[in-house]
Amino acid sequence: MHIGLVGLGKMGGNMRTRMRNAGLTVVGYDRNPDVSDVGSLEEMVQQLPEPKVVWVMVPAGEPTRATVTELVELLGEGDVIVDGGNSRWTDDEKHAAIAAEKNIGYVDCGVSGGVWGLDNGYALMAGGDADDIAKVQPAFDALRPDEESGFVHAGRVGAGHFSKMVHNGIEYAMMQAYAEGFELLEKVDMVDDVTEVFNSWRTGTVVRSWLLDLLVKALQDDPGLSKIRGYAEDSGEGRWTVEAAIDNAVPMHTIAASLFARFTSRQEESPAMQAVAAMRQQFGGHAVQAAKETGVDPAAPDPDEPTNPSA
Amino acid sequence: MHIGLVGLGKMGGNMRTRMRNAGLTVVGYDRNPDVSDVGSLEEMVQQLPEPKVVWVMVPAGEPTRATVTELVELLGEGDVIVDGGNSRWTDDEKHAAIAAEKNIGYVDCGVSGGVWGLDNGYALMAGGDADDIAKVQPAFDALRPDEESGFVHAGRVGAGHFSKMVHNGIEYAMMQAYAEGFELLEKVDMVDDVTEVFNSWRTGTVVRSWLLDLLVKALQDDPGLSKIRGYAEDSGEGRWTVEAAIDNAVPMHTIAASLFARFTSRQEESPAMQAVAAMRQQFGGHAVQAAKETGVDPAAPDPDEPTNPSA
Amino acid sequence: MHIGLVGLGKMGGNMRTRMRNAGLTVVGYDRNPDVSDVGSLEEMVQQLPEPKVVWVMVPAGEPTRATVTELVELLGEGDVIVDGGNSRWTDDEKHAAIAAEKNIGYVDCGVSGGVWGLDNGYALMAGGDADDIAKVQPAFDALRPDEESGFVHAGRVGAGHFSKMVHNGIEYAMMQAYAEGFELLEKVDMVDDVTEVFNSWRTGTVVRSWLLDLLVKALQDDPGLSKIRGYAEDSGEGRWTVEAAIDNAVPMHTIAASLFARFTSRQEESPAMQAVAAMRQQFGGHAVQAAKETGVDPAAPDPDEPTNPSA
Amino acid sequence: MHIGLVGLGKMGGNMRTRMRNAGLTVVGYDRNPDVSDVGSLEEMVQQLPEPKVVWVMVPAGEPTRATVTELVELLGEGDVIVDGGNSRWTDDEKHAAIAAEKNIGYVDCGVSGGVWGLDNGYALMAGGDADDIAKVQPAFDALRPDEESGFVHAGRVGAGHFSKMVHNGIEYAMMQAYAEGFELLEKVDMVDDVTEVFNSWRTGTVVRSWLLDLLVKALQDDPGLSKIRGYAEDSGEGRWTVEAAIDNAVPMHTIAASLFARFTSRQEESPAMQAVAAMRQQFGGHAVQAAKETGVDPAAPDPDEPTNPSA
Repeated sequence: MHIGLVGLGKMGGNMRTRMRNAGLTVVGYDRNPDVSDVGSLEEMVQQLPEPKVVWVMVPAGEPTRATVTELVELLGEGDVIVDGGNSRWTDDEKHAAIAAEKNIGYVDCGVSGGVWGLDNGYALMAGGDADDIAKVQPAFDALRPDEESGFVHAGRVGAGHFSKMVHNGIEYAMMQAYAEGFELLEKVDMVDDVTEVFNSWRTGTVVRSWLLDLLVKALQDDPGLSKIRGYAEDSGEGRWTVEAAIDNAVPMHTIAASLFARFTSRQEESPAMQAVAAMRQQFGGHAVQAAKETGVDPAAPDPDEPTNPSA
Repeated sequence: MHIGLVGLGKMGGNMRTRMRNAGLTVVGYDRNPDVSDVGSLEEMVQQLPEPKVVWVMVPAGEPTRATVTELVELLGEGDVIVDGGNSRWTDDEKHAAIAAEKNIGYVDCGVSGGVWGLDNGYALMAGGDADDIAKVQPAFDALRPDEESGFVHAGRVGAGHFSKMVHNGIEYAMMQAYAEGFELLEKVDMVDDVTEVFNSWRTGTVVRSWLLDLLVKALQDDPGLSKIRGYAEDSGEGRWTVEAAIDNAVPMHTIAASLFARFTSRQEESPAMQAVAAMRQQFGGHAVQAAKETGVDPAAPDPDEPTNPSA
Repeated sequence: MHIGLVGLGKMGGNMRTRMRNAGLTVVGYDRNPDVSDVGSLEEMVQQLPEPKVVWVMVPAGEPTRATVTELVELLGEGDVIVDGGNSRWTDDEKHAAIAAEKNIGYVDCGVSGGVWGLDNGYALMAGGDADDIAKVQPAFDALRPDEESGFVHAGRVGAGHFSKMVHNGIEYAMMQAYAEGFELLEKVDMVDDVTEVFNSWRTGTVVRSWLLDLLVKALQDDPGLSKIRGYAEDSGEGRWTVEAAIDNAVPMHTIAASLFARFTSRQEESPAMQAVAAMRQQFGGHAVQAAKETGVDPAAPDPDEPTNPSA
Repeated sequence: MHIGLVGLGKMGGNMRTRMRNAGLTVVGYDRNPDVSDVGSLEEMVQQLPEPKVVWVMVPAGEPTRATVTELVELLGEGDVIVDGGNSRWTDDEKHAAIAAEKNIGYVDCGVSGGVWGLDNGYALMAGGDADDIAKVQPAFDALRPDEESGFVHAGRVGAGHFSKMVHNGIEYAMMQAYAEGFELLEKVDMVDDVTEVFNSWRTGTVVRSWLLDLLVKALQDDPGLSKIRGYAEDSGEGRWTVEAAIDNAVPMHTIAASLFARFTSRQEESPAMQAVAAMRQQFGGHAVQAAKETGVDPAAPDPDEPTNPSA
């Protein structure tokens, strides 16, 4: 099979390698001439036999929209565009409509695997018409871990990215689950070696997982995690998952809480907790104190409560 | 009515004043001779006619236990001890049992009102036998805002402090509710004067309350709350409320989340979020970075996701 | 002042009355001829002197959009349209743009007060240009509780509905706070009369509020609330508040949890908890049981745990 | 090595088999004579060489306490009792103190593995003095999956059960994470075959885990999970984890939310949501309706909001 691949960054570059290793002929295009196989999108398209299949692997949003729009100009009836980036599923529907005007097929594909994908294969969640999926199947088969696993035709256009989005939402809450347990074990004066406790869970327990393996590796590299700051970025998927839950009236306590914990982790100061502190000062009748003067004393009583240290 | 009052701190001192203003004869004892009416607990008890009623207003835990134990030595059948502090309801049962050995009555009383109580009256939630409650009733009537309101005989011994505990749990979540709304209004570039928006809610809206009045006052004193740090202590009641919910299989999402938000507000660093960051670095294949080198970029993609800024 | 009022339902009808009581000349239009003052929107507009001010009080979404579009046809430069419905703030920006094409001013106004507003006045949060606000001010002053309170010019177009939206989000979490406390007090065998405990909080406590007054009234009408089902609908505002929080990276634990609790309250069956039950059955090695055969035993051990009732 | 084993239920029986397969001499005692090797605890103890090691595998709480108390009578200096049940770590400290009075060693051991443990081995988290642990080590080595994994000497007495408790807390939130994702995928009209989506995640993704494998198996047996009711019991460990978090001021949003979701799943009616519904009816001015008359309409507006379907 011949395939065009737009975007040869860390992910795209590895995917080109994996597809070539599987015997596919890949024509890669990137704005960076050092990694690009061709000088332009147009040249890439020209080198592909019909039906032409082009896999887009560029950032979600405007870059993907621009690339798709340009490809629609260059491709024709029966060709297929695959968006393997992190687009929101609602974008897929718009892009597919643009492609459909020229009878170009459209497939969206959520890709999981990160830097491990080159060797281990990628998990692929695809959405689109069966005919279009079929034209891309050799590429899917080259990228997935093996013939039996790591690929699903999830449904219509958008279903691939929707599935990947939910995957990421679940990932957020799983990470938070381990993280909360870690904090409790670290904080209580009970366990001598938290790293070893997590390590003991890697076999035979209910919580064993690849994420646990990663956490143990991180703990072995840096026991107590003193070298890393406690903040976490979030990508679109976590937010979109909670928004989709709200749209569909799905209670989503743990995934939403995990997302909020990431928000909090990035705050220098919490306006909400400033408001809580301000209310407590008001009803406690305390003078409003400057930030620096205020001592933190978790054992101190609620200003609302009667107390008397004398007696 | 005559009443003994042990503990003349900010709360106890004000309560003595309010009871005296209502015509009660109060004999107050405090370890601090500057505020005490008598030189010892024993002297205080001697000055009371039978049945002797002694109101204890000292910190929860060991101080209250010690005071109650000492009073049981000094009092006799038909007398009544009132614990008006912040004891956990489980302590009340133990104290009542000690008193019962000498047929001394025991009443627990949750007191709300803080520094505003002297003028406005206190809200009182009492637990105990009706006979014992009746002996204390003139004091309750002196302390409550007026004859019609602010007092409840909630149930058996412990029910007073249990009710006050739940009151405080509710208070946590109400404050958090306003606080989350405040943060959103502050953060979004939409509203010109957040203080005025909150102020407009004080009349005619569903969210009007005394807490809202306090928050508006705080905002008027310090718009944007820039002078106050965003941390909040917590007292026992919030924790006990969630523990009681767990014991009784009661879902308590908002009160527990409010308690956790206070915990977070007091952390310099979050071990949990360090663990999340560590896992993300592992699956993203990033080298582990020193805390200071790590830039915070909320817009950055999840390391799990394919991205390519080139193309 | 003359004002046109479109939509004379429960809210609009009461607002017409309150404005007329304040001396305004109100020309009301409703599709229902029984309550309408005129036969058409056009007729209504013709009866207004310039600058014409028209207050729209119809359902959010399509009805409001249609009404605004029609009014833009009928009005001209210097006139003002007020949307007093529950539109999402993002709609306001679109509607204002349509009006601006003909130099018609646009004001959005969040209105709180419900059926109590006729007598007590409405709380009003308005967004728009100061010039346009000024043209509507007599109507605002007629509707608000009094000259001092219940009105805010929150900011630019959209700021009014945004503020009202946040108000409703806060309202969700406040209600949930009381509700969680109620459930705990009801469930534990400690308090004799939960209604009386809530009633005692109405004066002198930190949690006193209008919502508390309402809850006490409901409890007095129906102690134990046995006559009402435990589900709660949600309107757009709660959802939009959490979505706005996500867009702005604001942690919003309690408001989101309150929204999710409403979702859960409307479910006959929880797919999520079916999944949890399915996983527990798998690792416990139990045969999958039919729904009806499965007994609920909260005291039963986790299948993951070693247990032996013999020994 | 010789070892006594008290409690031969599902877990204990399998553990006896696995230890015997590894070459240990196990003397098992159970109240049920059909499975017991000996007629009494005393007889079991007599058959063990010194230092005698006895592993207790009976339900937490009173049964364990009674067994330990009896064993302390029968054992002597240098012997070791192992509690492999689900005791709370605070019980371990009490039991160890009782044993210490006769210089009997005490080891607590959290055991994970369920019915899969016989073949795959058990994960073991032990607490106690190194000398005592050493005496039990051959049994640990027989039970664990292999020499390299599945065992940790976590710390002092109690640390084993504490670690196992945190493991179970993490497990709750991981299950809830998958469950929330499942509900969203099921509910939205986007994905054709939810089972296949979950199945595709089993290789190459960040969320792959043993729990995911189990969930896929459950979905393959019963697509849509229509045969199982959506409730979930909870054991002590989840509750204790959240309580320990509260004691140590550790924010624990996802684990607590998962516990609360299980509470909710077992409720026929939610008193909290009855209270929310009651408040909404009050401020909406609706007559209080009987439960059966009330229709559920999620799309209906908040009673607080102005609406008018006419116009």
